[in-house]
Amino acid sequence: MDKNLLHGIIRAFLREDVGRGDLTSESIFSDHEIGSARLVARDSFIVAGVESVAAEVFKVQNPSVITVDAVADGTMARPKMGLLTVSGPVIDLLKAERVALNLLQRLSGIATLTAQFVDKVKVYAVRITDTRKTTPGLRVLEKYAVRIGGGANHRFNLTDGVLIKDNHIAACGSIRDAVEKVRAKIPHTIRIEVETDTLEQVEECLACGVDSIMLDNMSPEMMSKAVRLINGRSLVEASGGVTLETVEAVAMSGVDIISIGALTHSAPSCDIGMDWSF
Amino acid sequence: MDKNLLHGIIRAFLREDVGRGDLTSESIFSDHEIGSARLVARDSFIVAGVESVAAEVFKVQNPSVITVDAVADGTMARPKMGLLTVSGPVIDLLKAERVALNLLQRLSGIATLTAQFVDKVKVYAVRITDTRKTTPGLRVLEKYAVRIGGGANHRFNLTDGVLIKDNHIAACGSIRDAVEKVRAKIPHTIRIEVETDTLEQVEECLACGVDSIMLDNMSPEMMSKAVRLINGRSLVEASGGVTLETVEAVAMSGVDIISIGALTHSAPSCDIGMDWSF
Amino acid sequence: MDKNLLHGIIRAFLREDVGRGDLTSESIFSDHEIGSARLVARDSFIVAGVESVAAEVFKVQNPSVITVDAVADGTMARPKMGLLTVSGPVIDLLKAERVALNLLQRLSGIATLTAQFVDKVKVYAVRITDTRKTTPGLRVLEKYAVRIGGGANHRFNLTDGVLIKDNHIAACGSIRDAVEKVRAKIPHTIRIEVETDTLEQVEECLACGVDSIMLDNMSPEMMSKAVRLINGRSLVEASGGVTLETVEAVAMSGVDIISIGALTHSAPSCDIGMDWSF
Amino acid sequence: MDKNLLHGIIRAFLREDVGRGDLTSESIFSDHEIGSARLVARDSFIVAGVESVAAEVFKVQNPSVITVDAVADGTMARPKMGLLTVSGPVIDLLKAERVALNLLQRLSGIATLTAQFVDKVKVYAVRITDTRKTTPGLRVLEKYAVRIGGGANHRFNLTDGVLIKDNHIAACGSIRDAVEKVRAKIPHTIRIEVETDTLEQVEECLACGVDSIMLDNMSPEMMSKAVRLINGRSLVEASGGVTLETVEAVAMSGVDIISIGALTHSAPSCDIGMDWSF
Amino acid sequence: MDKNLLHGIIRAFLREDVGRGDLTSESIFSDHEIGSARLVARDSFIVAGVESVAAEVFKVQNPSVITVDAVADGTMARPKMGLLTVSGPVIDLLKAERVALNLLQRLSGIATLTAQFVDKVKVYAVRITDTRKTTPGLRVLEKYAVRIGGGANHRFNLTDGVLIKDNHIAACGSIRDAVEKVRAKIPHTIRIEVETDTLEQVEECLACGVDSIMLDNMSPEMMSKAVRLINGRSLVEASGGVTLETVEAVAMSGVDIISIGALTHSAPSCDIGMDWSF
Amino acid sequence: MDKNLLHGIIRAFLREDVGRGDLTSESIFSDHEIGSARLVARDSFIVAGVESVAAEVFKVQNPSVITVDAVADGTMARPKMGLLTVSGPVIDLLKAERVALNLLQRLSGIATLTAQFVDKVKVYAVRITDTRKTTPGLRVLEKYAVRIGGGANHRFNLTDGVLIKDNHIAACGSIRDAVEKVRAKIPHTIRIEVETDTLEQVEECLACGVDSIMLDNMSPEMMSKAVRLINGRSLVEASGGVTLETVEAVAMSGVDIISIGALTHSAPSCDIGMDWSF
Repeated sequence: MDKNLLHGIIRAFLREDVGRGDLTSESIFSDHEIGSARLVARDSFIVAGVESVAAEVFKVQNPSVITVDAVADGTMARPKMGLLTVSGPVIDLLKAERVALNLLQRLSGIATLTAQFVDKVKVYAVRITDTRKTTPGLRVLEKYAVRIGGGANHRFNLTDGVLIKDNHIAACGSIRDAVEKVRAKIPHTIRIEVETDTLEQVEECLACGVDSIMLDNMSPEMMSKAVRLINGRSLVEASGGVTLETVEAVAMSGVDIISIGALTHSAPSCDIGMDWSF
Repeated sequence: MDKNLLHGIIRAFLREDVGRGDLTSESIFSDHEIGSARLVARDSFIVAGVESVAAEVFKVQNPSVITVDAVADGTMARPKMGLLTVSGPVIDLLKAERVALNLLQRLSGIATLTAQFVDKVKVYAVRITDTRKTTPGLRVLEKYAVRIGGGANHRFNLTDGVLIKDNHIAACGSIRDAVEKVRAKIPHTIRIEVETDTLEQVEECLACGVDSIMLDNMSPEMMSKAVRLINGRSLVEASGGVTLETVEAVAMSGVDIISIGALTHSAPSCDIGMDWSF
Repeated sequence: MDKNLLHGIIRAFLREDVGRGDLTSESIFSDHEIGSARLVARDSFIVAGVESVAAEVFKVQNPSVITVDAVADGTMARPKMGLLTVSGPVIDLLKAERVALNLLQRLSGIATLTAQFVDKVKVYAVRITDTRKTTPGLRVLEKYAVRIGGGANHRFNLTDGVLIKDNHIAACGSIRDAVEKVRAKIPHTIRIEVETDTLEQVEECLACGVDSIMLDNMSPEMMSKAVRLINGRSLVEASGGVTLETVEAVAMSGVDIISIGALTHSAPSCDIGMDWSF
Repeated sequence: MDKNLLHGIIRAFLREDVGRGDLTSESIFSDHEIGSARLVARDSFIVAGVESVAAEVFKVQNPSVITVDAVADGTMARPKMGLLTVSGPVIDLLKAERVALNLLQRLSGIATLTAQFVDKVKVYAVRITDTRKTTPGLRVLEKYAVRIGGGANHRFNLTDGVLIKDNHIAACGSIRDAVEKVRAKIPHTIRIEVETDTLEQVEECLACGVDSIMLDNMSPEMMSKAVRLINGRSLVEASGGVTLETVEAVAMSGVDIISIGALTHSAPSCDIGMDWSF
Repeated sequence: MDKNLLHGIIRAFLREDVGRGDLTSESIFSDHEIGSARLVARDSFIVAGVESVAAEVFKVQNPSVITVDAVADGTMARPKMGLLTVSGPVIDLLKAERVALNLLQRLSGIATLTAQFVDKVKVYAVRITDTRKTTPGLRVLEKYAVRIGGGANHRFNLTDGVLIKDNHIAACGSIRDAVEKVRAKIPHTIRIEVETDTLEQVEECLACGVDSIMLDNMSPEMMSKAVRLINGRSLVEASGGVTLETVEAVAMSGVDIISIGALTHSAPSCDIGMDWSF
Repeated sequence: MDKNLLHGIIRAFLREDVGRGDLTSESIFSDHEIGSARLVARDSFIVAGVESVAAEVFKVQNPSVITVDAVADGTMARPKMGLLTVSGPVIDLLKAERVALNLLQRLSGIATLTAQFVDKVKVYAVRITDTRKTTPGLRVLEKYAVRIGGGANHRFNLTDGVLIKDNHIAACGSIRDAVEKVRAKIPHTIRIEVETDTLEQVEECLACGVDSIMLDNMSPEMMSKAVRLINGRSLVEASGGVTLETVEAVAMSGVDIISIGALTHSAPSCDIGMDWSF
């Protein structure tokens, strides 16, 4: 992640949580009181965002904070495992604590859920990806957590990928017309993907040489048929309500990519605490 | 919610999702094609953020978008119920769609979960509140959703409320010293709340006249004892891992306030779609 | 004061005064010419904002500027007393000079006036506070100066304190209705204060258990009556045109708090110069 | 004043005073309650910033607020004279009230003091100007108020005017060297002014053809001598501690410009209230 | 172009050129003086940015400005042809004039040069594209002008396209290793392009299935060989010093894309004036 | 150039070119791979912006980048001459490369063209200046390059200089009226310049004592007449379509200043490359 981009995001989150200062702590601690604390796992999970995000939160709050003993992102944490040790002015550790924990808990949750999906399909040559169903304002962080969990990213936003959907097709009259309109206008560096509901639509896509075909909410059986029909002439993405229970069946159909909104919109937060040692 | 504040937040979210434009839609639609769509519930839930947030997302994207037929925040939605109708340039409806849905789904989820907690304790004179465990960047919105669900807000950030915790007490030597230090420095408009783990700490709080006492992770029995001990001399807040299963037992202990982090960090999103009618 | 918040404010003030650069000094000095200067009191006053603000102005202009020999905020300065010594590129010292002096003169003026009020009432158990009548853009700094002068702060803005005034009461029909409406909606961490003009209103306030009662523009005699009536059941704040001449009489009435707009809107600037020693 | 610039300033001031909303008023009023109020003079003074600033504050808070019956800036207000009537959502009128009044009181104070100085010297061909001793963040507004009071503006910041002072001269060795260095580098659209303490320095200035000569802290007698010496070969500015008592004597010396820091740093606020008529 | 994005850019440019106001015009015109002016071609060229950019500059300066009679972007302008008529406060027309003209002249220059390149190769199935050699801060506008001129866009920035260059290859040891590293990490929505200098490198690219092959600074003969070798298995882009003289020879080689930095970094401005009719 | 101002500009340019990161390089290089590269002239030209701008681009991207061996701005570069060596994380050097080169090429182009104009008139006491026809967003940089090339700057924007043009004069009825209106309102620190087309207008200007007279699009002969007429009573600026071919004839007419829009709007970029040495 780009540091300048990240610092801007963190700064906004600290401003939200800290306001003009910590009324309680500033009444009790001076700027000169130094302390130390450790972020500790209270559960088992894949960590994401330790040195890359949580440590940066403390440093943005006060660049003089020292962070050591960070476990690498992607590590499987176990209960009581120390994840990061931070030292510096107590006031700044207290101000940054909530934001650092909030982010680390969410990102680790996403990495953990992603890893569970990835694990289910590890014998298949398939890529698990996220979607645009991320938390508003957190996309760059959440997509990072997906990568840490072993997943891959789908397009970041509406500008850096093309996905032709039903209302685009309806407006143009046919898949071919929509694809041609788009192909004529976009940079050649961007692939064209089309969302399909039926095998007829899949055939239309093949006829006009699209780069990726999204199979939207199809049954595994229908997906298998589609994959055989496509036969390597395009990337194939399965999409729509895939769960940990169904993901292997989807993978077995032979698709290249399975995109899962739940990775980012439904991953439960991990339990992480901050233990103080004044 | 303050419109200026809200618009700034929405603008940032749109920038994240839209980037420099919608490569697909801008290849297909001109600025002059007008369309109409309806946000529709696909499930039952308490809506939050319809006119107040989702409609504003469309209007920030393009002030010429017209929004009608908004159901009032707090309404119980049923599957297929229309929540909001938007009309305007198709391109702008498509650009705003994802952000509007993301927010509406999350906020409705929070309102719905809050309402479930509130409902469980409706015969008790107790207030259900949120915490600071909100999604970074969404606090002002999520706290609004809690209110729509019938809950109340705890302090917004570290500046507009005082909560004396264990490390503040440890640093001062005693609750009394911590309270006195804080009371001497803060505006008289802010109440002082102290987090306690034991009845001895509760007694110390009473001895120095704090405004609110937080009972942290106590059993309902211990909370009952604390409430009897306090006997109206201070507000009493229960905190720590309260669930839909345990909330009534907590309420029965006689506390005034039950704060629940799960309201904002664990509310599942509601299922809402956008149906087009070109 | 939060450094990040403070630096943002200072940066804006420097941009205002420096524009795109110092046309005169940049024609004469190179970036490599180093100089040293001393901020010196030309009068007697309580200093506020030396290391906390003025030194930061120079460092924001150029982080390589070194500041030493800062007297502590709250010190009584005497004519010719050195307050702060700054060393670094002459160009940057010249660019920061005006903003640093402007702020230090104003903040010291506020601290000095506050200290005069505090001194007048030092034998009474009363708190002198500011109001919202601060200079637009300078509130966080001016409220800091009030604290340095021995005063306390009233609410910072409309969000972190409640003050029910005449038009709120008029709109609700009675003090009780207004208080109940507000109490139902605000966080329990915020106290409710009501502005009163008559003893009847004071009684109404007591009947509904408000936290603080503001006695607005009452005579000292009437305030005494109100204090006796209230008898410890609420905090009591005196407000309205209190001067150095009248403050002791007000304090004698037994109120807990005296709020004074003049602390921030009418404190004369202190005389401080910058002596160069190339 | 440039509207875009002004609105940015006002927006920041409202954010400071309103925070995330008006906790009190939002508990009592809905967005639909409409009210009306009148800004009223409680004293006699020259008004500055009525339509140009105060009305804009209300409109920035909510563009649907209507403002009528504004008296023209520069009008002499008398006690009880209505200055501006505002109508719109009560909540927004309440949110904007304090900022609008704060600014109007300060700006009117500056215009009034400026007009007093201007009046003292009205029979002389002399221009009264401000300095850079303005309130940080308010320069564009305060310099506007000086113009309304009949004064003129000195340079706005360090970029749009040249003033060669003692340490510039010291660094160059002589006035001539300093002037030549500066003249070689600045745009030809900017005049060169030099600060002088002695008649020798004035002569040096004349010898190298400076555009304006500042007579710094000279007695009226010495200024007269300087004016005779200069004899129209340069503009002449008097500067340093000029008061309402001394300004006429200074003007009599024949200088072209008298610059007075007190116009902006010591003008007392005017008394203006806001009367409601629900 | 996204209006919100565009308005932010325009606002910054106006702030740069207007500063705090137009000292000359504000001394002469009041806000109430209305005027009208016409942007007129003084030469022949393809217009780009009339309604889309220049008209917006005037409206950002003052939303009450009315713009009519805009010729469509892509029109061939002839000397004396009116391009746009603007009416509104004279002061605002004067403030916006320079920025509007500067942008229109540059963008029309780019569209015109692009059209000349496109015209030279119109019988070939080849796409003329821009590069990242745009003017800093103007990329979104300049890439729009390329499209108006009949060209297409290459990647917008380093995030929305992949181009593997010599130092990437050197760091990985081989093209295959570089491609595999990149393919494993990027979204499947982005194509992979590799820069090649030799036919051996082209063969390496084909062996690992890259999406686009850039032929960097090759002679037309070598490009022909490369095209035959590639034989439709990848897109082929010619790059490096292509001019109006050489572009046809390059197109004849059979490449799919010719990217030309000169479109944006060397297009001469078009001559456009603003004629007033008070 | 003011560092804070410059860094803000550079940051925006990097954001434009880098987006959320360098997809290619981040797939290949870790943050820990260090490299070194040299900016090298490929042609002969006057360099502008080496240490002052290009080196800062790399440092803004990552403050740990080290820059050495910078040639001084104003140096005549020869092909293969090293201009600057940069060392640091390869990823950051790659991210900053394009922006650094784009700026250095443009600024050196401007300095080189300016130096050619200056050289043509070096035996005359005349100043070559820029205009407001700069690239939007780059004015502060481009005006710096003009100074490096030996030129001088005209006013920076509409606020820090006065230029009375034909529509100002038309609106006032006469030059005298326009000059008087302006003189009454502007700070005495700003000179008044008037644009003239005829000798009659020049005479009018002299009659009301303007500071500078612009001779707009006059022939050299007419300019000579104007200069003789003015005879030192005002600065004289020649303006309008001056080229390297005509500039000496213009200078011979005796004007003080020749302003040339082409310096900034038509200077060809210089050829500069970046050679890597991993």
